[in-house]
Amino acid sequence: MLRSELERFVYEDIGEWDDSSTLVPDIEARAAVVAKEDCVISGLQEAEEISAYFCLDACPLYDEGEFVPKGSEVLSIRGSARKILQAERLILNFLARMSGISTLTRECVLKVAQVAPGVRVAGTRKTTPGFRAYEKRAIFLGGGDPHRFNLSGAVLIKDNHIRLLGLEECIARAKAQASFTKKIEVEVEDLDGMDRAAELGADIIMFDNMDPADIVRGVEILRQRGLRSRVVLEASGGITPGNIEAYASTGIDVISLGWLTRNARWIDLSLEME
Amino acid sequence: MLRSELERFVYEDIGEWDDSSTLVPDIEARAAVVAKEDCVISGLQEAEEISAYFCLDACPLYDEGEFVPKGSEVLSIRGSARKILQAERLILNFLARMSGISTLTRECVLKVAQVAPGVRVAGTRKTTPGFRAYEKRAIFLGGGDPHRFNLSGAVLIKDNHIRLLGLEECIARAKAQASFTKKIEVEVEDLDGMDRAAELGADIIMFDNMDPADIVRGVEILRQRGLRSRVVLEASGGITPGNIEAYASTGIDVISLGWLTRNARWIDLSLEME
Amino acid sequence: MLRSELERFVYEDIGEWDDSSTLVPDIEARAAVVAKEDCVISGLQEAEEISAYFCLDACPLYDEGEFVPKGSEVLSIRGSARKILQAERLILNFLARMSGISTLTRECVLKVAQVAPGVRVAGTRKTTPGFRAYEKRAIFLGGGDPHRFNLSGAVLIKDNHIRLLGLEECIARAKAQASFTKKIEVEVEDLDGMDRAAELGADIIMFDNMDPADIVRGVEILRQRGLRSRVVLEASGGITPGNIEAYASTGIDVISLGWLTRNARWIDLSLEME
Amino acid sequence: MLRSELERFVYEDIGEWDDSSTLVPDIEARAAVVAKEDCVISGLQEAEEISAYFCLDACPLYDEGEFVPKGSEVLSIRGSARKILQAERLILNFLARMSGISTLTRECVLKVAQVAPGVRVAGTRKTTPGFRAYEKRAIFLGGGDPHRFNLSGAVLIKDNHIRLLGLEECIARAKAQASFTKKIEVEVEDLDGMDRAAELGADIIMFDNMDPADIVRGVEILRQRGLRSRVVLEASGGITPGNIEAYASTGIDVISLGWLTRNARWIDLSLEME
Amino acid sequence: MLRSELERFVYEDIGEWDDSSTLVPDIEARAAVVAKEDCVISGLQEAEEISAYFCLDACPLYDEGEFVPKGSEVLSIRGSARKILQAERLILNFLARMSGISTLTRECVLKVAQVAPGVRVAGTRKTTPGFRAYEKRAIFLGGGDPHRFNLSGAVLIKDNHIRLLGLEECIARAKAQASFTKKIEVEVEDLDGMDRAAELGADIIMFDNMDPADIVRGVEILRQRGLRSRVVLEASGGITPGNIEAYASTGIDVISLGWLTRNARWIDLSLEME
Amino acid sequence: MLRSELERFVYEDIGEWDDSSTLVPDIEARAAVVAKEDCVISGLQEAEEISAYFCLDACPLYDEGEFVPKGSEVLSIRGSARKILQAERLILNFLARMSGISTLTRECVLKVAQVAPGVRVAGTRKTTPGFRAYEKRAIFLGGGDPHRFNLSGAVLIKDNHIRLLGLEECIARAKAQASFTKKIEVEVEDLDGMDRAAELGADIIMFDNMDPADIVRGVEILRQRGLRSRVVLEASGGITPGNIEAYASTGIDVISLGWLTRNARWIDLSLEME
Repeated sequence: MLRSELERFVYEDIGEWDDSSTLVPDIEARAAVVAKEDCVISGLQEAEEISAYFCLDACPLYDEGEFVPKGSEVLSIRGSARKILQAERLILNFLARMSGISTLTRECVLKVAQVAPGVRVAGTRKTTPGFRAYEKRAIFLGGGDPHRFNLSGAVLIKDNHIRLLGLEECIARAKAQASFTKKIEVEVEDLDGMDRAAELGADIIMFDNMDPADIVRGVEILRQRGLRSRVVLEASGGITPGNIEAYASTGIDVISLGWLTRNARWIDLSLEME
Repeated sequence: MLRSELERFVYEDIGEWDDSSTLVPDIEARAAVVAKEDCVISGLQEAEEISAYFCLDACPLYDEGEFVPKGSEVLSIRGSARKILQAERLILNFLARMSGISTLTRECVLKVAQVAPGVRVAGTRKTTPGFRAYEKRAIFLGGGDPHRFNLSGAVLIKDNHIRLLGLEECIARAKAQASFTKKIEVEVEDLDGMDRAAELGADIIMFDNMDPADIVRGVEILRQRGLRSRVVLEASGGITPGNIEAYASTGIDVISLGWLTRNARWIDLSLEME
Repeated sequence: MLRSELERFVYEDIGEWDDSSTLVPDIEARAAVVAKEDCVISGLQEAEEISAYFCLDACPLYDEGEFVPKGSEVLSIRGSARKILQAERLILNFLARMSGISTLTRECVLKVAQVAPGVRVAGTRKTTPGFRAYEKRAIFLGGGDPHRFNLSGAVLIKDNHIRLLGLEECIARAKAQASFTKKIEVEVEDLDGMDRAAELGADIIMFDNMDPADIVRGVEILRQRGLRSRVVLEASGGITPGNIEAYASTGIDVISLGWLTRNARWIDLSLEME
Repeated sequence: MLRSELERFVYEDIGEWDDSSTLVPDIEARAAVVAKEDCVISGLQEAEEISAYFCLDACPLYDEGEFVPKGSEVLSIRGSARKILQAERLILNFLARMSGISTLTRECVLKVAQVAPGVRVAGTRKTTPGFRAYEKRAIFLGGGDPHRFNLSGAVLIKDNHIRLLGLEECIARAKAQASFTKKIEVEVEDLDGMDRAAELGADIIMFDNMDPADIVRGVEILRQRGLRSRVVLEASGGITPGNIEAYASTGIDVISLGWLTRNARWIDLSLEME
Repeated sequence: MLRSELERFVYEDIGEWDDSSTLVPDIEARAAVVAKEDCVISGLQEAEEISAYFCLDACPLYDEGEFVPKGSEVLSIRGSARKILQAERLILNFLARMSGISTLTRECVLKVAQVAPGVRVAGTRKTTPGFRAYEKRAIFLGGGDPHRFNLSGAVLIKDNHIRLLGLEECIARAKAQASFTKKIEVEVEDLDGMDRAAELGADIIMFDNMDPADIVRGVEILRQRGLRSRVVLEASGGITPGNIEAYASTGIDVISLGWLTRNARWIDLSLEME
Repeated sequence: MLRSELERFVYEDIGEWDDSSTLVPDIEARAAVVAKEDCVISGLQEAEEISAYFCLDACPLYDEGEFVPKGSEVLSIRGSARKILQAERLILNFLARMSGISTLTRECVLKVAQVAPGVRVAGTRKTTPGFRAYEKRAIFLGGGDPHRFNLSGAVLIKDNHIRLLGLEECIARAKAQASFTKKIEVEVEDLDGMDRAAELGADIIMFDNMDPADIVRGVEILRQRGLRSRVVLEASGGITPGNIEAYASTGIDVISLGWLTRNARWIDLSLEME
């Protein structure tokens, strides 16, 4: 975490003049951060960095991405009681938000693994402004794929691009303009779009809001044309933990879902001073 | 929104070299942001500021905090097609996250209003790091109370403070150290704590994780002692949309719940180019 | 002090290419910061942070807020001679400006304590742009009350607000809009204003530019109506060290004066290398 | 003013959630900034930049550095009443602090001009951390010389340097290390030091804490040796508005005094809404 | 260009107190930026942004990436003479550095195009710290490929990685850890490495510091194994404008050379006021 | 180096999500930075600061400004292999760019020293935006003079100033406006300009784009008028390593050339892991 970013987070939660924490004497204390429900824990590295900023000694009791049963202590903190009170909320907010995403990601990953081992579960750019790095890391720690980080990652040609320029022209421009080091992904809404994208040499094809049955047919067509191994296939749009298995078994490589960040509940954790 | 903050949000989503949006010709276009489900809309002001950054002309079709039926256009944007594609995700992320919180807040506010008009529904500091200002604003636009912004707002004496110092000493120090312009709030876990806090002159008493029945008894005791009008009463801890009405009818003034920010789903919105 | 803020202060005084301090060999040295006049010292914590930035070891010889007689060493610094020369002016500027304010504040606090123990002496927002946190801390260390930090502290309804909206409407809006965690203060210019503000439930009433005699009458009226214990009373406007005792004995709770920051002289201190 | 700096100043005074100014309806208003005492006005340019940030239209009625009689309007502001209330305190703080310094500088400049036209009155680095650019500009607008901005301006060899390295070595190093584009100034405490500094080719000699009589003698010696026109002479240390004329008539070129920034009172100004 | 970045560049060249440009009256003027040697021009967009910052009206007379003969005016600027003097050096530094890179890139691109149309000329990460975005853009405008922007672009497995972990493990980890949206590139030093990288499914193979003759052989081997169309081939290391044609005709797809940024001379341009 | 600046440089080269370096296990390693050609090394201090940021232990084997023969190790680094890979490119870019400038500067300095010992070789403001401090430091370490850092250094009256205002008025304004602590330099294009500048009391005269023969004549004229010792003489414009000796022997004090930063090649260095 960049120091300037960490300072912004700290300042947001403390403000210009904290009379609450400074009531407390500057004595040594120990605090336990406890998970109050089952979860896949993440954000421990961030919690350690925040602790270090406050000159606190934090010791994680689990690895990030590990399953934690309800009631377990996940982080032990030692140092100035006053500083612990100042760091408390920021540490908990990181852990709660990130672990919520990791837990939901893991749930999806396990469902997919049962029906189609090797298929990836990926996130999207539907993340809280200013907090993407942490939300994507939480997906990764939950076993998911962060997908491209921003518009400068892989070139992604979407419906609005195609509407403005046509698919052929989009791909031609992407190949001409974008560095050879980037993949070109095309979002398609039907099998005709898939066909053309594959022929034009897209590296990745995303089936957007298509039925599993249609996707199955699409995969078969590509196989018959000998193009299947040349393209990564991704399903996206309208996918939830409820229907993810249906998509997983279509023969594609990746399932991406905004659900991971849009609907993740925060995990309940608390910090207890001793 | 500070310009430096806006630039950080923009840079996070665009990155250092965007080949995706720049495929598209720099022609004039119009786009509609459409709510794909019923919601209480918020974040329109932020959407306008983001649009202005990209030299786009954005016109909101609803007031913030207004109810929007599924399928409605909430924002109309005109300007460079390329810039619209660059601004799209950031605008949608603001609207979706903020409106999700406003919608959930409104739901709670309406429930409370039916059983106890005048009782406030408030947020907490359980917010996404770096995004608090917007999450608290979303609560406000949903009809809620943002509660103190950070540790420098009202002095809040919590369990961990009391464990370290004792209630009397906490309040004494708060009165001595904190500016007279700040309120002093005390978190209590039982009626004994409430009694002492009221006698010691707390401005606000928070019933933390207490049963509605106990709170009713507490309110009655304060009334009998003539202290009720001297103190604001807040219930907090374990409150959900499911049990909020029980708390609302206990005779207290404010209900605060982390649920508003921890469990709010994002509203589904999309941007459609013409 | 945020690291980014500290770096700005350091850069301001050193600039891009310092040929003055770097003349000197990089040997170990000791320096004494000496008060060249009687004062109440403050800024020692900032001086330590600046020293730490330059890898210097600084040891304060007084507590902040303590009285220091002329000629005393207040801070002992050890480390690279070159670094001491680079840190010198910034350390002295902090100490001199802050101690000047603390000293003047203490003078007022002592005067008030003699005629009306318990009455607070408070600052205002009349502070040097960019340096408020330190000027308010200097007031606090001198024994004063920092008053609200900025517009986001307590709601303060002033003459210009009332001129635009009327007092009733101002208070009504403040109660409806502002969080229940904030106090509402009303600035009044006569006893009629005081009456209405008290009836409308202001938490704090500020007598602005009123004669001590009028204030005495106001306090008496509130007492008779049984409202005195419900409201904090503050006098402000035109108060100086010369007339502060007259205000202190009017029966109010707080005296605020811009004088503390507007007219404080800097304390004379020097750094002597050995 | 850099935008990032302006935003910091604005944020310091407004904070994260302003309920005070936003009470007021967003109507058009006019406000007058009025000087409540005689002064030399400065900071009007900054006031305009702050106004522009808030989309307010500010029109100065005096030139910076001009004398303003008590009661005069110095700046007329039009725009949103709410924005005026948000900008008010920051504008006043700039004007009050800067005009205080300009007024005191002008007083010294006029005294000096009467006894020794052409002698400059200069500031020092004794400025409020983070606010130097404005304090030095206020000196300049009052008719003074800002002196070197920071350690990277002219090389200044002071007592602490000489104590560590000896005068000869200091000057030798300065000539060898510092760019030929910088002047070399030497602080001397007696005429012997002056002699050696002049012989070693200092561009500027500063008489530090020396009696006017000694300085007169020093100037005479330099004249006799034909060195007077080769060196700029500055008096510094212990100079106040009370003794500045004695120094001005010693034959030197510049008088520098920390007094300008250390002891300047703020000018009383107020903003009146119509 | 982010505003905060632009302000840093401006501040670097102007500093805290500019007495040079402010000598000049604030009159309207016109200035011409003239190329004093043949070049491929780039940086005009940045020049316009800098001009806009200074409220100057800048009109480019060429497109970026276009060939400009010696003596031509490339940019016409109108506005305050004082502001033109303040913007002059920064504008020229951008144009001179960027056009130097574009000119050298174009030279290489033309050489390659004659012997092997379609082969790309790419940059590296050997760029001036803090100025990469502009140096890579200059390569792009010269007709080159910017290559990955930083470590977060395509995964690049280099000699030091392989030494630590072995090639198989490197590729296995890259496939497991990195998002499916990123390409995996492997740097090889001989044909054996090429063989293994191709078999393990590298998306891009970089021949590092290999002879053209060996590369020709490598391309032939891949062709025979039917792997040529599955992998992008890049030559790198020790390539200069002098030997680039030999590499271009080996049958590879991309030639990358640090030379473009390491050895580009600045183009000579001057700004002439009228 | 300011921490915030260092973080910007690091972030530029690493980006938001580095999958390349993190492939590698977090084991201890040693790396050697080796010069692959003869050079004057500089940037070692920056390399150490970058290493420290990554918690690496870096030990320089040469002093900055020292001559380093081809094949020598210049810096030894120990620490996490992963961190070394992350720091590698930034360290090399600093060393390669800075050493290139130092090497070229030294070459010029040695040429000048042979024909005219004592004459300085100086840089200009023709530096890469955002990187000036390091490029000027490289000149200094190569034995050159950094010249004024930016517009706020010495007042420099150039052709464009004179065209707008006339020489007399420029110098008059500079003397009146600029602090007495700054030197005034005038750029002249012929001996007539030199005459007037010297008479008007310029501290430095720059012969801009003049023939060595004319400069010789100018120096002689000043000598005859007894003004030579009152003014520093600088030659600039069109000077290269090829003609620098001709300028050096004209009797001037300083030769400044943009060539040092505009045409310096980067030194070839590599980092080798063990």
